[in-house]
Amino acid sequence: MRRCALLLSLLLISLLLLATTPDENSLLAGYSAASSRSEREWEGKFRAIPTQQNLRDYMQRLSARPHHVGSPYDKENTDWIMSKFKQWGLDAHVENFDVLFPTPKVRVVELVEPTKFVAKLQEPALAADPTSNQQAEQLPTYNAYSIDGDVTAPLVYVNYGIPEDYEKLERMGISVKGAIVIARYLHSWRGIKPKVAAEHGAIGCIIYSDPNDDGYFQGDVFPEGAWRPREGVQRGSVMDMPIYPGDPLTPGVGATKDAKRLDLKDVKTITTIPVLPISYGDAQPLLAALRGPVAPDDWRGALGHTYHVGPGPAKVHLKVQSNWDIKTIRDIIVKIPGSTYPDEWVVRGNHYDAWVNGAEDPISGANALMEEARALAELLKQGWKPKRTIIYCVWDGEEPGLLGSTEWAEEHADELRQHAAAYINTDANGRGYLFAQGSHTLEEFLNDVAREIQDPEKNISVWKRGQLKQIANAKSDEERQEIRKRSDVRIGALGSGSDYTVFLDHLGIASMNLGYGGESQGGIYHSIYDDFYWYTHFGDTDFSYGRALAQTVGTAVLRLADADVLPYDFTDFADTIHRYLDELEKLAKDKQEEIRERNTELEEGVFSATADPKQIFVPPPKEDVPPHLNFAPLENARDALTRSAEHYQKAFDKATKNGDLALSPASIQSLNAELLQSERKLTSTEGLPGRPWFQHLIYAPGQYTGYGVKTIPGVREAIEQKKWKEADEQIARAAKALQDEAALISSAAALLEK
Amino acid sequence: MRRCALLLSLLLISLLLLATTPDENSLLAGYSAASSRSEREWEGKFRAIPTQQNLRDYMQRLSARPHHVGSPYDKENTDWIMSKFKQWGLDAHVENFDVLFPTPKVRVVELVEPTKFVAKLQEPALAADPTSNQQAEQLPTYNAYSIDGDVTAPLVYVNYGIPEDYEKLERMGISVKGAIVIARYLHSWRGIKPKVAAEHGAIGCIIYSDPNDDGYFQGDVFPEGAWRPREGVQRGSVMDMPIYPGDPLTPGVGATKDAKRLDLKDVKTITTIPVLPISYGDAQPLLAALRGPVAPDDWRGALGHTYHVGPGPAKVHLKVQSNWDIKTIRDIIVKIPGSTYPDEWVVRGNHYDAWVNGAEDPISGANALMEEARALAELLKQGWKPKRTIIYCVWDGEEPGLLGSTEWAEEHADELRQHAAAYINTDANGRGYLFAQGSHTLEEFLNDVAREIQDPEKNISVWKRGQLKQIANAKSDEERQEIRKRSDVRIGALGSGSDYTVFLDHLGIASMNLGYGGESQGGIYHSIYDDFYWYTHFGDTDFSYGRALAQTVGTAVLRLADADVLPYDFTDFADTIHRYLDELEKLAKDKQEEIRERNTELEEGVFSATADPKQIFVPPPKEDVPPHLNFAPLENARDALTRSAEHYQKAFDKATKNGDLALSPASIQSLNAELLQSERKLTSTEGLPGRPWFQHLIYAPGQYTGYGVKTIPGVREAIEQKKWKEADEQIARAAKALQDEAALISSAAALLEK
Repeated sequence: MRRCALLLSLLLISLLLLATTPDENSLLAGYSAASSRSEREWEGKFRAIPTQQNLRDYMQRLSARPHHVGSPYDKENTDWIMSKFKQWGLDAHVENFDVLFPTPKVRVVELVEPTKFVAKLQEPALAADPTSNQQAEQLPTYNAYSIDGDVTAPLVYVNYGIPEDYEKLERMGISVKGAIVIARYLHSWRGIKPKVAAEHGAIGCIIYSDPNDDGYFQGDVFPEGAWRPREGVQRGSVMDMPIYPGDPLTPGVGATKDAKRLDLKDVKTITTIPVLPISYGDAQPLLAALRGPVAPDDWRGALGHTYHVGPGPAKVHLKVQSNWDIKTIRDIIVKIPGSTYPDEWVVRGNHYDAWVNGAEDPISGANALMEEARALAELLKQGWKPKRTIIYCVWDGEEPGLLGSTEWAEEHADELRQHAAAYINTDANGRGYLFAQGSHTLEEFLNDVAREIQDPEKNISVWKRGQLKQIANAKSDEERQEIRKRSDVRIGALGSGSDYTVFLDHLGIASMNLGYGGESQGGIYHSIYDDFYWYTHFGDTDFSYGRALAQTVGTAVLRLADADVLPYDFTDFADTIHRYLDELEKLAKDKQEEIRERNTELEEGVFSATADPKQIFVPPPKEDVPPHLNFAPLENARDALTRSAEHYQKAFDKATKNGDLALSPASIQSLNAELLQSERKLTSTEGLPGRPWFQHLIYAPGQYTGYGVKTIPGVREAIEQKKWKEADEQIARAAKALQDEAALISSAAALLEK
Repeated sequence: MRRCALLLSLLLISLLLLATTPDENSLLAGYSAASSRSEREWEGKFRAIPTQQNLRDYMQRLSARPHHVGSPYDKENTDWIMSKFKQWGLDAHVENFDVLFPTPKVRVVELVEPTKFVAKLQEPALAADPTSNQQAEQLPTYNAYSIDGDVTAPLVYVNYGIPEDYEKLERMGISVKGAIVIARYLHSWRGIKPKVAAEHGAIGCIIYSDPNDDGYFQGDVFPEGAWRPREGVQRGSVMDMPIYPGDPLTPGVGATKDAKRLDLKDVKTITTIPVLPISYGDAQPLLAALRGPVAPDDWRGALGHTYHVGPGPAKVHLKVQSNWDIKTIRDIIVKIPGSTYPDEWVVRGNHYDAWVNGAEDPISGANALMEEARALAELLKQGWKPKRTIIYCVWDGEEPGLLGSTEWAEEHADELRQHAAAYINTDANGRGYLFAQGSHTLEEFLNDVAREIQDPEKNISVWKRGQLKQIANAKSDEERQEIRKRSDVRIGALGSGSDYTVFLDHLGIASMNLGYGGESQGGIYHSIYDDFYWYTHFGDTDFSYGRALAQTVGTAVLRLADADVLPYDFTDFADTIHRYLDELEKLAKDKQEEIRERNTELEEGVFSATADPKQIFVPPPKEDVPPHLNFAPLENARDALTRSAEHYQKAFDKATKNGDLALSPASIQSLNAELLQSERKLTSTEGLPGRPWFQHLIYAPGQYTGYGVKTIPGVREAIEQKKWKEADEQIARAAKALQDEAALISSAAALLEK
């Protein structure tokens, strides 16, 4: 009996392995049988090249000194990277842009009442960490693109400083009008915090890292552990990137020397109130001096005192003044021309500028990019000829506001719209699971790539490990079963926060962002402690995941560049749109029910009966129940998309049923040309309401999340912001784009059937 | 339009008020029209008598000095309470019992490695708090009924020290065998912590109050605020009360002078390992010295350091030695004989002993009891004659282990089984909402009483306020709608933790526990700071809820004592049993699904794929999927119960349809005699598995919760503990009791139809 069970288990395991290991003889998506075989060989050769030692060496070199925009060592890195590319025989050049990049001149945070305390605003060198003492070259702790200001006012603690926090403050009868707010990092991109604070009337904003979120509450602090030490500060940009990223002076065009520039006073993406980031060491006396109501449960952090909201009696003086200089940034561009379809481009990028030494962010991604480039150069020497043109980009100026990628892509917008088939991004990398986000037309493609990569810690593919992790994390049995049954693991949608933004959101180029993580966490983000010492003790310490990243992205680049037909898959895309529409319909219904229920509770007296008379409580206002929206256009578009996706899949399967592509070279070229434009159909030149730079109608960073994605953003944000007329308009617009996409897919299918 | 809406709102509000205010002319449950009228008058008079000033005066007197079991001031309180009762003209006497009550002789907690630290184990006097300096009379901080012991061992942090915490430790590869565990208070009754620790091989147990749970994380600490200061300690009993409460030497019988006593070595309710409670001031150095894995997210408290689990390198020396003395406790008993049914007793109690000064616990309940007694004495003088006998009990020795109530009820067990119609308990009282728990045959009765009481803070009844609070707290729309539609607000079931235990769980007397709270929280429980200063600054500071409590309980006592027919309602009871059975069936099904899913995940490799190789992780074992249980006997019993309850209700409505009870006095007497036994039918003399003292088959404190209730406990705990055969046996036994109950109800209904 026991023996039988064992045999059965072995059999099951073998079947599972069979089901998840790519079949060596199957067709790669977009490939004929012959090209599948050759591609598999080249990919195998490619993946054998990257070494952990090289990755380590690149990181040690590139993170040896602070290398922010405009710093001497950033220039040294440009030259060194260029020299490596040249040494490997690649065709590399530098493109310069001149961008607005403010650096701090005056920074003051002080408690002036009820007691005095002056914030240090300085991260100390640590004996164990050899690069932490490079103070002369370190950029001081600040938030880039904070407006200059000098304000003194009572302090109010606003939790994460996101819209729902201000709703809670309203229920507590607390206004931030005329106050300085102190918000903790996380739960939104940092630039949202001063924006929302200002919208509510605050005159200054302090952002701090609570030890609950990335300090001692999470684990031992650096250098004993990976987490943020007492005086560690997260620098970062607070530019209003959900309006437009890139150089604030040149929206929509490349910041070349002669570009037309806005006056500083006309710029919309600089904060309207002064902002500074501080450590929890500096925050503690400020927060401890607050009184007023005790903060709600989930607002309380891990500082050893009671969290009060204020306002006051703590009064704070905040002063920020910057040098508003124009700096030159240098993007490094490598071109490998395509042999068959030179006018179809596969673009791959990672930035190399950092806030300080930036070993993790961005060098743990940039070193993989370099190692990929070296491996591609090797393959070229061995006779490999990519069908498509490959462009490798090492971006400068990502940290202040995606400057390098945005300006380059704006400068080359027309060519990119014409030629770019896909953009592949990476940024910081760590130990653990493959995180893949991107356009859902690439979901199947990404799944196929992930099936090829072996996890460095486990004897399974990174695809399998990711799937099992999703099963472990699933919140319901239904979700678990879907993960088990679906052939592809779902990928997330892209918001913002790295260099894919301009490609996807502005130009409508199918994009993806790849990285490993989940096991190597820490609290050194954007601080002087994000350096080689930290990374080699607490990150991907042996660079095995760096190697996996180079293998993953390189395989993706190769497979995109060499495919006979661009391997977009519209079935997963249609399935995803189905889900998004379900979500939107539920969101609209939930809003109705929520308001209806709240109105009932107001009528029956729930709020007045449950308010503690010893605390101030302002009941929410009665609101009109939202109208029903006309989702029919989106429902019809979804159905059309589903039909055309099935049509295309059937036509493609038929065209390749004998292992060869039963199409003339000219037809294949037309087909590829058609497919290349498929993501572009999802954009509108009018862009999203209030932010025309964002032209993708399916993916965008949220106006009040900053990094976090909003899918079908025009509709979703209109519902969230209770703009019912706009919601109906945006439904029509998104539906039109999806109908156009369906038409393109049908047309591509017809080409296959010719 | 707006005007119409306003009118409609006013109309709606009036209708709501009509629906929730008791109709002055309706029949009270169990009353004829004539007796309803007279009862309403007496109740009105009663509720006018209690004064806030008296409650304040009683508290100031009774909590002026420490008054634990055996202390001089406990004796002074006995005499003073007796003198008050006598002064009011009541028939009061004292009953003495001699009980085992250990008090501390030696207490040591010290860190011996890697550094030295000796715990203070002393709560400091605070200048603002006038009684906190009575050190000579204060009982030191300790856990009563800890076994003597002297151990030195590595420390392990076990979170709340409940069974699931040890499961998590097992997954982390950590054993507590031979270790001293440190657990935080809450999430189980404290006595469970050393019990579970010992079951897992620990040799000592320290319990501390984390500031996350009742210290500065919750709010400002005493004396600035209500919460536990740095050196505040929760004393308390760790006797294994889920086996049996009361004097450990005399289980099941009253601890009279000549009672047969167990040898100390044969006692099963004393802990098997030494235990001491400490403050967070004393805990901090111990916890900070731990290393090993970082504690799971939800194990981390609010001390400003990283929480590690250990074991070690912290090594701790723990020594406990007690004086194992016999002390005399004094219960105060007041009898008001019944005029019509003197052999039917309504019993009401609250304890008066405390751990130290005990203003909140128990005097905020004891003062209401006294004020009720004074008001009853007033009514008697005005000519009121209760139909039933009323017994007021002021218990001694509750804190160490429900000693006074248990010994008295064991001593009078036969009489109580024969005569007791109900037991009404109170204990600590605060500001906010009425919390009512009890036998569900009294659910409707309690709802009716709550409808009569005006909330001191809001212009609505405490019933309405409670209902609106439940709506506010509801977790689903379904739940909310049920609350809105159901005529009665559901009451909770009774576990343990106060003096109702012996009445309900051992003797099967329908019981209830009443108190106000939810708005006046704090962290002074069982510390020297639970005193008059604290209570008058942070508790029910003006005693308006004390007055409401006296009004609530007094109304309940009067209405039970004066009813023509005992006002048990079996419809709510049957409805509740329905829910419990649904819960049990779901529990059994969930267990199956949980194990089935876990086995699948073990097979597909989820656990090995998601384990971080840099941390120890032990996957859970594969388990047999639990068998299906035979719930049919309980389903049949539930249906029989529902039918008989409907039958009784119909018969009762018919018998009272003209406002008079269409029954002879002899029939009413028989009916009452039958009804009086209804709760007794729910008991079994064999008791629950492994703990025969607990005889109620519907309600019991959990073996691993201590205070928290387990309903239909024999079945529920068998399922939880995976004892499938026992579960089937217990289903049959509980079903038998419910069938007997149904038969009794049918028989009562038949009496009404005669």
